[in-house]
This record gives sequence, structure tokens and C-alpha cells, in this order.
Amino acid sequence: MNQELAKRKGLELIQRSKIAMIGSLDEKGYPNIKAMLNLQYEGMKIIWFSTNTSSKRVQQIRKEAKTSVYYVDQDRFSGLLLLGRMEVCTDEESRKALWFEGSERYYPQGINDPDYCVFRFVAEKGNYYEGLCNISFPIE
Amino acid sequence: MNQELAKRKGLELIQRSKIAMIGSLDEKGYPNIKAMLNLQYEGMKIIWFSTNTSSKRVQQIRKEAKTSVYYVDQDRFSGLLLLGRMEVCTDEESRKALWFEGSERYYPQGINDPDYCVFRFVAEKGNYYEGLCNISFPIE
Repeated sequence: MNQELAKRKGLELIQRSKIAMIGSLDEKGYPNIKAMLNLQYEGMKIIWFSTNTSSKRVQQIRKEAKTSVYYVDQDRFSGLLLLGRMEVCTDEESRKALWFEGSERYYPQGINDPDYCVFRFVAEKGNYYEGLCNISFPIE
Repeated sequence: MNQELAKRKGLELIQRSKIAMIGSLDEKGYPNIKAMLNLQYEGMKIIWFSTNTSSKRVQQIRKEAKTSVYYVDQDRFSGLLLLGRMEVCTDEESRKALWFEGSERYYPQGINDPDYCVFRFVAEKGNYYEGLCNISFPIE
């Protein structure tokens, strides 16, 4: 598997994933993991999530932007790990872009709910594996 | 949901999970995530995994024991995050305990393959969530 194939397969994995796992660092230095809905992405360079402003993860990411996003297919033994930086966005454009039918369940006050915010992840490098084969690549 | 119920549901999630996600810290301070087979555990206090001694994860964990183990049920929107410390074990007892039919695929030289080792995770605290409800608890 070369880098091009690994990137193509990684992107296919993103496309068929219902969730992604977010890795962040807590105040005591433990890597935390949380599944989030796979909502929107621009290739594998920029990935968007929506979340509660009051959540632990928002506090963690405001302190430490270095994060990861991970997709896994447990039946094929394949996975994609992206390392990069996460930004917490509260501007209207980001809110609108990520709002979907059903978001009211999480943010009852609607699109301007102060407890609604958006994560914008920018990937710097990736690793895709399938079975025993794994390959790393930069993400420009 | 009280702590007792959260712990019971968390344990049920471990029991029905095929994989667990391991969170570790790389040399540049990024939280890494990797899925591993859910093989063996003692409640949610001690959890065992097997891996390749040569893997990046072993190097990371030898440098920084603070890690996490995460289980997710994407259909029920439930998850269990355990924070604790991971130890890399290469002793015979640990190797034997984790060896299973099919391990040869990963460690062709068998149970004494130098590229075969075992992770022993000891949980310190946990968080279980289901839908919008989440609860944290110590793990004694």
C-alpha cells in the first residue's frame, strides 16, 4: 500500500463512518476519547463537529489544541488516525454550517443556543492501517 | 442514572464490545487513538491487551503511562471512558494469559515471539454516558 492508496482508503473510511473518535488532553495529562457524530469534512484536511459549549471537551481543547480524530472499521480491521489541531468556533457561519435536523435534541434553544458550538479540526498528518499493513502520510 | 447503574451499564458495554480504543500520548504531545481487540478484563479495574513490541504505542506507553480505554456503542449513543495507567508486560505469565487461537497471525514465532507483548491497564476513574446523560465515578 502506498501513500496515495492509504489516503484514498482513509477517505472512504471517513465517508462510511457514522462516528469519529476525538482524542484530547485533560488537565491532568490523560488522553481522553469521545465519540462524536461524523457530520462534515473537507477531504481529510478539515473536519467539523458540533458539541455542547459546556462540555469537558471544550474546556480541554481551549487549553490544548493538539488533538486527534480517529475512524475505525472493526469488521475490516482498518482505521485512520489524524493528528492535528482543534479550534472551538462560536461564530454564526460555523453554527449554521453544522446545524442539522435533530440538532434541537442537543441544543433546545436552537441555532443560537449558547450551549451550541462547533469544533474545526485541521489535520497535519495521518496514519491508515488495514490488517497488518499501515502507512503514515503528511496532510497538506 | 446513579453511579452503581452507570458502572453496571459500563461493564455490560465492555462485555459486548469487540474492540476498545486505547488513548496514549505521542512524543510531540498529541493524543493518539488505536483500536485493539477486547480480549480480557477483570471488571473494569484491570484490562489486558496484546500488541506488537515494536509498535509505536509501546514506545509511547513506556514513556508515559497515563492512558485511556474507551468503549462505544454507536447505535445506542453510549460510551465508557476509563482513565488510568498502562504497563507493558513481557513476562511469561502475561503472555500465556493473553494468547488465543489466531495469535500466530500477529506473532508468527508463537508465544515467545519477541514482538509479542501485553498491556496491563489499571483504571483509576470512569465516565459512562448514554444519550444526554453522563456520570463519572472512581474505580477502586
